[in-house]
Amino acid sequence: MTTNKTVPSDIDIAQAASMVSINDIAAGAGLTADDIEMYGQYKAKIKFETIERLKTAQDGKLILVTSINPTPAGEGKSTVTVGLADALKASGKNSMVALREPSLGPVMGVKGGATGGGYAQVLPMEDINLHFTGDIHAITTANNALAAFIDNHIHQGNDLEIDPRKVIWKRVMDMNDRALRQIVIGLGGPARGVPREDGFDITVASEIMAVLCLSSDLKDLKNRLSQIVIAYTYQGEPVTVADLDVQGALTLLLKDALKPNLVQTLEQTPALIHGGPFANIAHGCNSVLATKTALKLADYVVTESGFGADLGAEKFLNIKTRTTEKHPDAVVIVATVRALKMHGGKSKKELVNEDTQALKAGLTNLQKHIETVQEFGLPAVVAINKFHTDSDAEISILEDFCKSSQVPFSLTEVWEKGGNGGIDLAAKVINAIDHPGEFSYLYELDLPIKEKINTIIRKVYGGSEAVFSKKAEAQIKQFEAYGWGALPICMAKTQYSLSDDPSQFGRPEGFKVTIREIVPKLGAGFLVALTGDVMTMPGLPKNPAAKNMDVTEDGKGIGLF
Amino acid sequence: MTTNKTVPSDIDIAQAASMVSINDIAAGAGLTADDIEMYGQYKAKIKFETIERLKTAQDGKLILVTSINPTPAGEGKSTVTVGLADALKASGKNSMVALREPSLGPVMGVKGGATGGGYAQVLPMEDINLHFTGDIHAITTANNALAAFIDNHIHQGNDLEIDPRKVIWKRVMDMNDRALRQIVIGLGGPARGVPREDGFDITVASEIMAVLCLSSDLKDLKNRLSQIVIAYTYQGEPVTVADLDVQGALTLLLKDALKPNLVQTLEQTPALIHGGPFANIAHGCNSVLATKTALKLADYVVTESGFGADLGAEKFLNIKTRTTEKHPDAVVIVATVRALKMHGGKSKKELVNEDTQALKAGLTNLQKHIETVQEFGLPAVVAINKFHTDSDAEISILEDFCKSSQVPFSLTEVWEKGGNGGIDLAAKVINAIDHPGEFSYLYELDLPIKEKINTIIRKVYGGSEAVFSKKAEAQIKQFEAYGWGALPICMAKTQYSLSDDPSQFGRPEGFKVTIREIVPKLGAGFLVALTGDVMTMPGLPKNPAAKNMDVTEDGKGIGLF
Repeated sequence: MTTNKTVPSDIDIAQAASMVSINDIAAGAGLTADDIEMYGQYKAKIKFETIERLKTAQDGKLILVTSINPTPAGEGKSTVTVGLADALKASGKNSMVALREPSLGPVMGVKGGATGGGYAQVLPMEDINLHFTGDIHAITTANNALAAFIDNHIHQGNDLEIDPRKVIWKRVMDMNDRALRQIVIGLGGPARGVPREDGFDITVASEIMAVLCLSSDLKDLKNRLSQIVIAYTYQGEPVTVADLDVQGALTLLLKDALKPNLVQTLEQTPALIHGGPFANIAHGCNSVLATKTALKLADYVVTESGFGADLGAEKFLNIKTRTTEKHPDAVVIVATVRALKMHGGKSKKELVNEDTQALKAGLTNLQKHIETVQEFGLPAVVAINKFHTDSDAEISILEDFCKSSQVPFSLTEVWEKGGNGGIDLAAKVINAIDHPGEFSYLYELDLPIKEKINTIIRKVYGGSEAVFSKKAEAQIKQFEAYGWGALPICMAKTQYSLSDDPSQFGRPEGFKVTIREIVPKLGAGFLVALTGDVMTMPGLPKNPAAKNMDVTEDGKGIGLF
Repeated sequence: MTTNKTVPSDIDIAQAASMVSINDIAAGAGLTADDIEMYGQYKAKIKFETIERLKTAQDGKLILVTSINPTPAGEGKSTVTVGLADALKASGKNSMVALREPSLGPVMGVKGGATGGGYAQVLPMEDINLHFTGDIHAITTANNALAAFIDNHIHQGNDLEIDPRKVIWKRVMDMNDRALRQIVIGLGGPARGVPREDGFDITVASEIMAVLCLSSDLKDLKNRLSQIVIAYTYQGEPVTVADLDVQGALTLLLKDALKPNLVQTLEQTPALIHGGPFANIAHGCNSVLATKTALKLADYVVTESGFGADLGAEKFLNIKTRTTEKHPDAVVIVATVRALKMHGGKSKKELVNEDTQALKAGLTNLQKHIETVQEFGLPAVVAINKFHTDSDAEISILEDFCKSSQVPFSLTEVWEKGGNGGIDLAAKVINAIDHPGEFSYLYELDLPIKEKINTIIRKVYGGSEAVFSKKAEAQIKQFEAYGWGALPICMAKTQYSLSDDPSQFGRPEGFKVTIREIVPKLGAGFLVALTGDVMTMPGLPKNPAAKNMDVTEDGKGIGLF
C-alpha cells in the first residue's frame, strides 16, 4: 500500500482499533454462541451443524471484486473488497466480506499482508497474518503426512510399484525457502528411505489447499482427497491417495481446518477468512464453504479473486462457480491511475508525475477486463481506488473513459476513510445488481482440453491461440485416455500481462500462448495448464521483513507491516 | 497400554466422557474467564497477565512421576500421573496435573498417545493428539523460518562467512518421515540457493522446543533464542541467532505458543499440557511456565518426566529444577510386574505367565532408580501399576521388596478405576511430602564438563566412567574455550538400559559409557552429550496407524487409538 501522510500505518491503525467480542459479531450475523467455536476473544470457527442448519436459508447477493492486471504500483483490491463491505453496512445493508487467508511465508519476507489496508482492514491483523486458527498448518501437516506415506510405501516394499522418478506429490512448507526448491531425499543408506529427487512448494500451492477450498463438506473433502494423483507406476498408470488408503487420516487432520473462520473488519462488519490457494497453479479464491455460508448469513457478500480478471475472475467464474452453483451478481473491477500509467509504459518511479498520455495508453488494459466480465454476462462496475498523487486531470480522463464505455464507476477512498469512502461505490454496485445479465460459463466441460484452453486464450486474454509443447501434446492425449478430459482448466500464467509474456503491458493482441505442461489436480477437480515457469516456492529478499519484527514484553507484535 | 476386557478402548472412553466447559475448569482452579483465551469450548490458553499476577501467590507441592527403564511391556507413567492427580482431587485435595504435549508424527505411525489411558486420561483426547492449540506448529514454523534465514543469508552474499558444511541448524517437521533424515538441498543452479547436506528432525527434537519449555517469559524466550548456535564460520567461530538478528521475529512466531494450555482430565481435574521436548537429545519435561503456573493454582501438582529416572528424572532435577527454582517434594517411581519381568530377562510374549524368578531378577532395576531419587535427597514412592495378568504371588514379591527397602509403595488401579484406583497412592505421596529430605543437585555447574558427565554416569547409571571419543575430546576443549563449560549436561542415552547398551536390562554394573559427541544447545542452556546414535527423525511402520483413521460426517474422529 502506498503511504499517505494523513493515514497512520496499517499495524498502528489495527492495534489502535477497539474490536468487539466475536460473540457480538456472530450475533450481528444472526448466529448464537453455540454456532461458533472461539479461538481467543476475536476469532471463531463456524460449526458444521450450523452450516448444515443454514442450508435452507435464502442466498444473499454475491459481489466479486477483481482488478486490472496487477503492477508493482499496487491496486488495493483487498482494501476495496473490505471497504465495500463496510460501505454496504454503512448504507444500512446487511453485508459480509469473504476473503482468503494470508500465507505466513511471504509475511516473513516482504512488507505487505492480505488483510486490506488503511481504514479498510480485517482484524485481528497480527493473528490473521501469523498462525490464525491453524488452517494452513493443518494443510501443511496433511500434505506432508501424505508425502511420508508415499515414501514409506516405496521403502516398505512398494507393493503399488510406484516409480520413484515419477512421484508428483511434493512436500510443502509455509515459508519462503528457495533452498528447498530442488532437493534429493532418502540419502544415507537403506535405513533412510529410497533416494529420489524431490522439492518443497509453499503450502498455499498444495493441491490440498485447493481441495479444502472447493469442498462442500467433510464427505466431499474425503472424496476429493482420495482422488488426488500422487505418482505413476513403472507401467505409467496413475496412483491415487485411495490406492494408499489414507484419505480418512488426511480428512481427520483437516476436519477443523474445513470450518470457516469468523473475524471482523475495523467497522465491525462480519468477515469470513478461509482458505487461500495460489492464484497461478490453483484457482485463487477463498473457500466455497465460507462463500456459501456468508451468502446464507448476509444480504450482500463481497469477495475477491486473485490477481487480475484474466486469472482470478476467470477461474472464479469457470471453476469455483461450478461448485458453489451461485454466480456473482455483479463484478467490481479495481483500477488505479498509477497502475494504469504503468500499463501505459511508465516505471514505478515515474508515477508521482501527472501523465495523461500514459494513462490513456494504459486504459486498454481496463477495457479488456470490462469486456471479459461482460463476456460472462455479468454487470461490471469500475472502482477507481484513489491515491493522493492522482491529479484531477487524470481522474477526469479515467471517469470519461468509463462514461464513454457505459460502465458504472465510482471514485473510492476506503483506504483513507473506511466504509464512508465507498458509499457511492456501494450504491453503484446495488444498482448494477438490480440490472442483472444472463450468466454463462465461457466453455462447456465436455469440450476437448485444447478447445477449452483456446477459448480462454481468445475470450479472456485476447490472444490468437495456444501453442502446445510436445510434452503437453502427449499429456493431453494421455489424460483424455485416462478419462480426465471433462475437467475445467486452471490456467497458470503470469499475472502481469494479459499474454504469457510478463513484459507485455496494456492490451497486447494477436499473441500466442505456449502451453508447456498439463498438471492433473484430480482432487481439486481441474487440469492446470502451465505457460512458462511457475514459481511455487518463493525466496526471501536480502533483508527479510523479519529483521524488523519483535514482540513487546506483554505480547504485542512490532514491525509486522 | 495393555488391553483389559473390563475396560473399553481409550478413544471410546474419551468420546463417551462428558466434559465441562473450560471456563468451569478455570473457575475450579481459581481463574476467571478473563484469565484465559478459549480455543473452542474445552481448551484454553492462560494469559501472560494472569501468570504475572499469580507470581506473588504461594507455591503448592510438586510431585514428579518417573519410572523404571521403559520396556516394550509399557509402564503407564502418564496414566499414573493423570490418575494420581485425580486421586488427590478425589481425596479432597486441590490438585492439578502438568503434562507434555504429544507429537503428531508418532500418532500417524503407531498406536498410542501421550494423554494417559483407560480411566485416567486428559481430554479432549483427539484435539490434544492432533493439532491441539497449534504450539508444535508454531515451533515448526519458527525453526524453519530460522533455517530459511540461514540459507538465505548464505545465498545473498554470506556476510557472516558461514561455512555451508558447518550449518548445525536443521529443519524440522512434526512427522515420522525417514526419507528426510539425510538430504541435499539448494540444487538446481544459482536461483535455488547454495547446495549443502542437510536433514530434518522431528519438531519435538528442535532446540526451539527445549527453549520454549525452559523460558520463564517472552523476554527470556527472546534472550534464549538469540543465543542459539546455528553454524560455524570458515574460521571456526560460532554463529548465533543474534548474528542474524531474527530473534524478534522468532519470538513473534512463538508468542502464543509460550502460553500454557488448560484442559481437563476425565474426572475434571484441571490439566496444563504444554511443551514436549524429546527426552533423549533434550530434557524431556513439560514447560517451566506451565509447572510454575500450576504450582500457583493448586496445592498439589503432579508432573512427569520422560523415559526412566536415569534420563527424565535426572534431567528434571539437574536441568529443569535450576530454572524453576523449585524441586519436587516427592518422586513417584512407576513400575509394573510385567516390565520388571522383562528386566529379569523375559521377552514380551512370555509375560502372560507367572514368573517369580524373572521378577526377582528384574527388581534390581527398580532398586537402582530408588537409590537415584534418594541420592538427590528426595522421598521416593513406588507406584505398582497393576495389570490383570499380574499374579498374587508376583504382587507379593514386589510389595515385599518395597517393604524390605523401606520405600513406601502402593498398588494402583487408576487405569481401570480412575482416581478411585489411586486413593492409597495419593495418601502415601502426601505422607512422603510431609517427611521431606534435603534436596541437592548431583553436580555443581562450575565443574569441568567431563566431571559432570562422569558424575551422572556413576551416581545415576551405576557405571564406572565415560570414554570420550576423539571428537568429543576436541569439542570439550573447544567449548570450554568458548566459555560454554559451566552449562548443565543433557545426556542422550538409550532409554532401555541404565547403560549405553540397549540390550543390558536389569542393573548392569562396571560398564563404561562412550561419549561420541557434544552438541551445544546454548538457547536451551545445556550441552548434549551423545552416547551412540540418537534417532531424531522416526520412521513409519509398514502399516501406519493412519490407515485405520477416519472421520464421521459430523466430524468425530475414528481409529485414533
